Amino acid sequence: MASFKTIEWRGDRVSMIDQRKLPMEEVYFECRGFEELAWAIKNMVIRGAPAIGVAAAMGIALGAVRSHSRDKVQFFSEIKEASDAISKTRPTAVNLFWAIERMNRVLKENQARDVDSIRDKLVEEAIGIYEEDIAICRSIGRAGAELIRDGSAVLTHCNAGALATAGYGTALGVVRAAFERGGGITVVASETRPFLQGARLTAWELQRDGIPVTLITDSMAGYVMRKGMVDAVIVGADRIAANGDTANKIGTYTLSVLAKFHGIPFLVAAPTSTIDMKCPSGDLIPIEERDAAEVTHIQGARVAADTPVMNPAFDVTPSANIDYIITERGVVGPPFAENIETLFD
Amino acid sequence: MASFKTIEWRGDRVSMIDQRKLPMEEVYFECRGFEELAWAIKNMVIRGAPAIGVAAAMGIALGAVRSHSRDKVQFFSEIKEASDAISKTRPTAVNLFWAIERMNRVLKENQARDVDSIRDKLVEEAIGIYEEDIAICRSIGRAGAELIRDGSAVLTHCNAGALATAGYGTALGVVRAAFERGGGITVVASETRPFLQGARLTAWELQRDGIPVTLITDSMAGYVMRKGMVDAVIVGADRIAANGDTANKIGTYTLSVLAKFHGIPFLVAAPTSTIDMKCPSGDLIPIEERDAAEVTHIQGARVAADTPVMNPAFDVTPSANIDYIITERGVVGPPFAENIETLFD
Repeated sequence: MASFKTIEWRGDRVSMIDQRKLPMEEVYFECRGFEELAWAIKNMVIRGAPAIGVAAAMGIALGAVRSHSRDKVQFFSEIKEASDAISKTRPTAVNLFWAIERMNRVLKENQARDVDSIRDKLVEEAIGIYEEDIAICRSIGRAGAELIRDGSAVLTHCNAGALATAGYGTALGVVRAAFERGGGITVVASETRPFLQGARLTAWELQRDGIPVTLITDSMAGYVMRKGMVDAVIVGADRIAANGDTANKIGTYTLSVLAKFHGIPFLVAAPTSTIDMKCPSGDLIPIEERDAAEVTHIQGARVAADTPVMNPAFDVTPSANIDYIITERGVVGPPFAENIETLFD
Repeated sequence: MASFKTIEWRGDRVSMIDQRKLPMEEVYFECRGFEELAWAIKNMVIRGAPAIGVAAAMGIALGAVRSHSRDKVQFFSEIKEASDAISKTRPTAVNLFWAIERMNRVLKENQARDVDSIRDKLVEEAIGIYEEDIAICRSIGRAGAELIRDGSAVLTHCNAGALATAGYGTALGVVRAAFERGGGITVVASETRPFLQGARLTAWELQRDGIPVTLITDSMAGYVMRKGMVDAVIVGADRIAANGDTANKIGTYTLSVLAKFHGIPFLVAAPTSTIDMKCPSGDLIPIEERDAAEVTHIQGARVAADTPVMNPAFDVTPSANIDYIITERGVVGPPFAENIETLFD
């Protein structure tokens, strides 16, 4: 486990490490209502698909705990308000919708009970999703570590670590598991412009936990691969279509092309909750376009000329560029459409 | 021509637009001696291989003008001091050494003359190199524009523009020429971390001259190519080996792999002074490693965790990934080793 808490349920509030301020400051952001929690997801106080799922569930639980209503109709309407607010925060990570659905199912299954009892069930479910995520990431780690030879240098993009999950990581869960086995694993972290999750979060998280990491700019990925300095690329995912196409942080597709060109294995690590079986192909995954200021400004200071900017937060890597998808239910390779289906049997 | 002056000989000093401060401030850096000029090259007040060549020549001329010696031995020793200081500034751009050699040839050819006359010859040569560079870039532009269809979107990296040359550009010289013909050219500029030459310089230069430009982060290059938004990639060069292997800003190699994967033409635009016929292969080109702080800090503020960093300033694109090299003496394609030789016949 990581040596810090990404997100924590605290009875009447949710505490999360403020990822906008890392690595300069380690401060915790407290959400006392679902509105604050929705704001925190939208503004990337917390990010990473699994962590967003956990936060969404805790946000609905927070809505339940903060409601003083004893009237069931009123209570249900307040929970709906919380769900709606949270569902509008970020469009790409499917874990958000998966967690909301899970909370709504609990609501429905317990609708005959009294308000206090339903409230308890919702809190229990949110904590359950949190705990499950840790167990799931450990399973992903174990399964993925078998694909990583001792002494490997692993290139990762963005942050699919403890900070992106309840506390162990998906891509970095694989790294952690391989490292814990004593495999002498080293990591090359791409800085991940524009939001610098690699430079700020992955580098901080790995260093804090004693796993050797070297930081590169995104543009150096081809250079280090050509130099033979990368044995595998491992990334997380924000949504995986039923055919294996994978939406992940912008720049992932570029890395997949580079890995293919250099004959380096390209691995995606994600819980099955990231797989959207209703989405047949990556072309149908909605891609969030974020504020141009993320590109033109860094820490509030202008760094670019005042020109038009593109800022898609994600891209889609076609399954043809992926060697393995690592989940808590096992590892699947091509043909992905068939093999992913077996995970849900 | 660009609507600003990258570098200017002013009789007793050299003025250059301070490229560290663009686009936030348009200020001019004045060099009154070769020491200041060497500092300016080393610290990237001026950058871009052809501009570095022009600056190096002007730096030696400045050494000549600032010398008050009437004694020839003393004068020659002062010029040597200037040459040595300038030659130690940056190792990769061959134009630096080419310009120093040219100045030393003038010195040698005129060694029988008196000091005042030699001084005049050196100044004349430096101004000549400056003027030639503009003419050369115009020729590169004309030759390269024939490879660019009307309506094309051209992706470029770093800044191989007016700011990287005496005032017209190599890669952006091709863009300028295609644009001047009324070709409806648009540019996609990659920001070019760590020093952000794309975001700060290329975007500023093109916008200032009315050429439509959209800024992306380096990691978005694969995404825009996959979306069909790029018809050609054009970059400059810091050194081209005799076999066509090309050292250019870090990230160029990544773009060449992406272009190859997507079937997009990959063009290098550079004067023949960038071709190092003494260097048979790209593996032999020295690659400058710059300060880690360029990666971990932006405008003096820390943006990354305090981890080990790589910061090679350049990478080498093997000629197999290049479709054409565009020079002032014409365009060459593969086989490069043979065809480059014809440029020097």
